[in-house]
Amino acid sequence: MISKNQLKLLRALGQKKQRKTQGLFLVQGEKNVLELVNSPLTVKQIFATTEFLAEHRPLLPFECIEASLDELTKASTLVSNNAAIAVVAIPQIEVPKAQGLMIALDGVSDPGNLGTIIRVADWYGIKHIVASSDCADPYNPKTISATMGSFGRVTVSQLDLPAYLQQTGLPVYGAFLEGESVHKTQFAAEGILLMGSESHGVRQSAAQYVTDKITIPAFGGAESLNVAMATGIILDNMRRQNG
Amino acid sequence: MISKNQLKLLRALGQKKQRKTQGLFLVQGEKNVLELVNSPLTVKQIFATTEFLAEHRPLLPFECIEASLDELTKASTLVSNNAAIAVVAIPQIEVPKAQGLMIALDGVSDPGNLGTIIRVADWYGIKHIVASSDCADPYNPKTISATMGSFGRVTVSQLDLPAYLQQTGLPVYGAFLEGESVHKTQFAAEGILLMGSESHGVRQSAAQYVTDKITIPAFGGAESLNVAMATGIILDNMRRQNG
Repeated sequence: MISKNQLKLLRALGQKKQRKTQGLFLVQGEKNVLELVNSPLTVKQIFATTEFLAEHRPLLPFECIEASLDELTKASTLVSNNAAIAVVAIPQIEVPKAQGLMIALDGVSDPGNLGTIIRVADWYGIKHIVASSDCADPYNPKTISATMGSFGRVTVSQLDLPAYLQQTGLPVYGAFLEGESVHKTQFAAEGILLMGSESHGVRQSAAQYVTDKITIPAFGGAESLNVAMATGIILDNMRRQNG
Repeated sequence: MISKNQLKLLRALGQKKQRKTQGLFLVQGEKNVLELVNSPLTVKQIFATTEFLAEHRPLLPFECIEASLDELTKASTLVSNNAAIAVVAIPQIEVPKAQGLMIALDGVSDPGNLGTIIRVADWYGIKHIVASSDCADPYNPKTISATMGSFGRVTVSQLDLPAYLQQTGLPVYGAFLEGESVHKTQFAAEGILLMGSESHGVRQSAAQYVTDKITIPAFGGAESLNVAMATGIILDNMRRQNG
């Protein structure tokens, strides 16, 4: 059973301010909760249905509290069925050293897009994302949900993006409509892929550090691609050269 | 002003059964509504704010009805601000001849995913999508919204997919985890890209017609990619060889 105070905490963690104050975030849904087993994250508690615990309890070295699906739905920020909710400590992340392939995000404010970018980054073996401070919160429940479990394998550091880009010695590949086709670009083995928001693109404050403007060639009528989609397609082009 | 009967119609068109009965669907939001100007679709009416009409009325050769943002929000199936809603006739689409590059979808039931696939198909110049009858409705408001205007340039035919694939003379490239890397595949100039749902993959009834199993090579820890993302990445690989 979920106590009144626990319910209050779970609900509070839907808000960014509360997540910051408490140093906690929510991981919801069967797949995402099970990913915690192999992650370095510190799990405080798991609330889950009898069925979920019957199947997975032996795998979970965490405090587990049984709850009905109805209670979990009430506590959840997700609409769909939710067999498990974990309360997890927000980890201390060191700002990553600029090395290997990395992603930088400028003003990507939609949590679903950020989560999808984390997932595709994980697919292509990217370990670190640096994001401007006005990007979506990496610990937003919608972000976590969209990562489909990849939140434990990719770090997202919110920071002063122009300052970070200024000090990096790596090539910065910025996505611009007028850039060079990614089908023709020679990518270096190490570099930062800089993506802007769908509505504003990469802003000048970050764009000034771009060393190579790149673009995805268009063959039809669409004016643009979703930022997560564009990130995935460019990563595929980078990895085909530097797997 | 939106009359009571008009409001009833707009609300009804949120439901698939009603769309079928009435032969109508909704196009919502500024960008999508403006796309109708250059599309071959038959627009019945546009409901829009004074501001929208002041800016765009001369461009719109349609019956336009002024409505407040409040009225439009009540009539809309979208949550966000909605300056315009169009009522549009569902077009008669002929089943496309198998030629050029095409997409086939097997059991892709999420309307947002279908809309995103339509958008990226349009980017890569794909004109026709054939979809199993249990795919999401191409006229679902969520599908239309996710196309970001591409709904007017790409046709989606719901049909008996195995029967369609059986009679096509084209290579059928099916996405399977165990397929050949798309970085190494030699794609023919014409062919059908067959994608399955995220949960069930391509089902046997369609899989039996696959001539080439392909996959997106993974470099990290994610187990899968979203079906729309995977479609976009594979299309990019096809078009780099056959632009």
